[in-house]
Amino acid sequence: MKEAKHIAIVGATGAVGEEMLACLDQRAFPISELTLLASARSAGKTISFQGKDIIVKELTHNSFDGVDIALFAAGGSTSLEFAPSAAKAGATVIDNSSAYRMDDEVPLIVPEINPEAAQQASKGIIANPNCTTIISLMALFPLHKKYGLKSIIASSYQAVSGSGAQGIAELKQQCEAIAKGEEIVSEVYPTQIAFNVIPQVDVFQPDHYTKEELKMLNESRKILNLPELKVTCTCVRVPVYRSHSVSITAAFENEPSVEEARGIFANYPGVDAKDDPSNNLFPTPLDTTLKDDCLVGRIRKDKVIDKALALWVVGDQVRKGAALNAVQIAEIL
Amino acid sequence: MKEAKHIAIVGATGAVGEEMLACLDQRAFPISELTLLASARSAGKTISFQGKDIIVKELTHNSFDGVDIALFAAGGSTSLEFAPSAAKAGATVIDNSSAYRMDDEVPLIVPEINPEAAQQASKGIIANPNCTTIISLMALFPLHKKYGLKSIIASSYQAVSGSGAQGIAELKQQCEAIAKGEEIVSEVYPTQIAFNVIPQVDVFQPDHYTKEELKMLNESRKILNLPELKVTCTCVRVPVYRSHSVSITAAFENEPSVEEARGIFANYPGVDAKDDPSNNLFPTPLDTTLKDDCLVGRIRKDKVIDKALALWVVGDQVRKGAALNAVQIAEIL
Repeated sequence: MKEAKHIAIVGATGAVGEEMLACLDQRAFPISELTLLASARSAGKTISFQGKDIIVKELTHNSFDGVDIALFAAGGSTSLEFAPSAAKAGATVIDNSSAYRMDDEVPLIVPEINPEAAQQASKGIIANPNCTTIISLMALFPLHKKYGLKSIIASSYQAVSGSGAQGIAELKQQCEAIAKGEEIVSEVYPTQIAFNVIPQVDVFQPDHYTKEELKMLNESRKILNLPELKVTCTCVRVPVYRSHSVSITAAFENEPSVEEARGIFANYPGVDAKDDPSNNLFPTPLDTTLKDDCLVGRIRKDKVIDKALALWVVGDQVRKGAALNAVQIAEIL
Repeated sequence: MKEAKHIAIVGATGAVGEEMLACLDQRAFPISELTLLASARSAGKTISFQGKDIIVKELTHNSFDGVDIALFAAGGSTSLEFAPSAAKAGATVIDNSSAYRMDDEVPLIVPEINPEAAQQASKGIIANPNCTTIISLMALFPLHKKYGLKSIIASSYQAVSGSGAQGIAELKQQCEAIAKGEEIVSEVYPTQIAFNVIPQVDVFQPDHYTKEELKMLNESRKILNLPELKVTCTCVRVPVYRSHSVSITAAFENEPSVEEARGIFANYPGVDAKDDPSNNLFPTPLDTTLKDDCLVGRIRKDKVIDKALALWVVGDQVRKGAALNAVQIAEIL
């Protein structure tokens, strides 16, 4: 029997925080006590969990007494300010923000890929990777084990849930405004997202890539322990609510096989193949909505690069891309 | 002064046919007579053009007496059946379908790229290329002239207008059904397109690529006269009404420069750069809606392939992807 833990969720009222609660419940995570934390603005709200009403408390540096595992889902600045306090109080922090991901003393973990890295959490902090990176690597890691991954060229189709509850609300509001012939307001995104796609996710960096695109490069290298891995990524926001899709050309050391790849996915945890062109089968974002597993389809030989496959991977951004992965890390501990 | 021509439009009541009329009008194409043709179902409708009401006639093999240029925008089977009759009657056919594109005796033309090919229309038929191919090559041809194109890896974000008026209607109806909580009907697409993306455009071929993806390969080779060009393409339908976007990694013989590429686009007809990361400038599909020019942004060094650029090109599918390009071919004649 597993020992029940005192769990804290920071950012419990956000989209990812809510999903973390759903994952803890569905996976019957053994909980001795549940502390829900948020900013002063959201403190005082009541959240129902397994039949009990829990009052959300204001996050302070003294919020973590007796907490075993603190799941942070409240943005980078909150993590930078409060994660050290949680760790100092003896909690293991699992941080969904990008704040600590590239810190050498902080493991960056996808439980199906590098669970052993959890042993190296010398700061008491473990980082949850970027959502597009997790979903892409769920497809690429099983292939890497077989063929040896050399490079990734990826174009993403990212859901608005990646911008949190306000991204979801903005897409919904814009669609309503268009239906009513009213003026469209863009606050979360730099321009209209309804019936449009936006080739910019996160801020631009000096090399003209966005921060999101460089996360695919840097986080993939760290998670896979492949410091020489080459990655070109173009991250694009699309008017989809909560599953990300990624179109990938992946090159390998050894010649990959399409048939074999399908079998590899069918036998790997957390990912499955939905790939049968003769029966028009391929995965779309709606197929993985509210689902744990990522789905891979459109697997075929790349026509430009030798020993490469083209493929299409889809996963629920809020779940495997964030909350589920964090709860799975908590399960390792 | 240009000699006025007798123009026929086959499929005059469809999305592309309507746009052809708009292009002829806006570009003040010299027209002596205008014959509008459609199936028996649409015959008898009245279309207003430059202040005159024109009755749509039923398309028959005898519809082309005295016609100088016949613009076909009614699908492959109609073109296969009626284009030879039009050519036999002395008209030059400009066909928007894929029926004749790979025929060695039929030139495949993007007027900014290979206008000289119009001389080789030995059958009296000229083909208008695939929309995604036209838009991609509008970005790639000016770079090819400078650096020598070797390969293309592309992922598309294709608007529903590519499926004609019924694609546009299906997206609209699905959004309305979702807003009302009603059941969603998918007839044009294999699954829901509203708030979803579908990684399948046109039918699957034996190599697991779709016909649309192989058009990018085969048509690019023919238009650019580069029989060795390598192309991997993943074509994806997105819930956007009428501009296609394409995320491209293009490799060249010679080392390309990001700054130089921007200048090349700024000075080339039919395409422009909208690319300034420091000011958050990049093109989205809404930027080219109802516009003639394609826009290129996100230009940067590719991180996987040597001598390669990553870039993002956007163009109005109905206009430059179909109707405008056809009318521009007519202007060459």
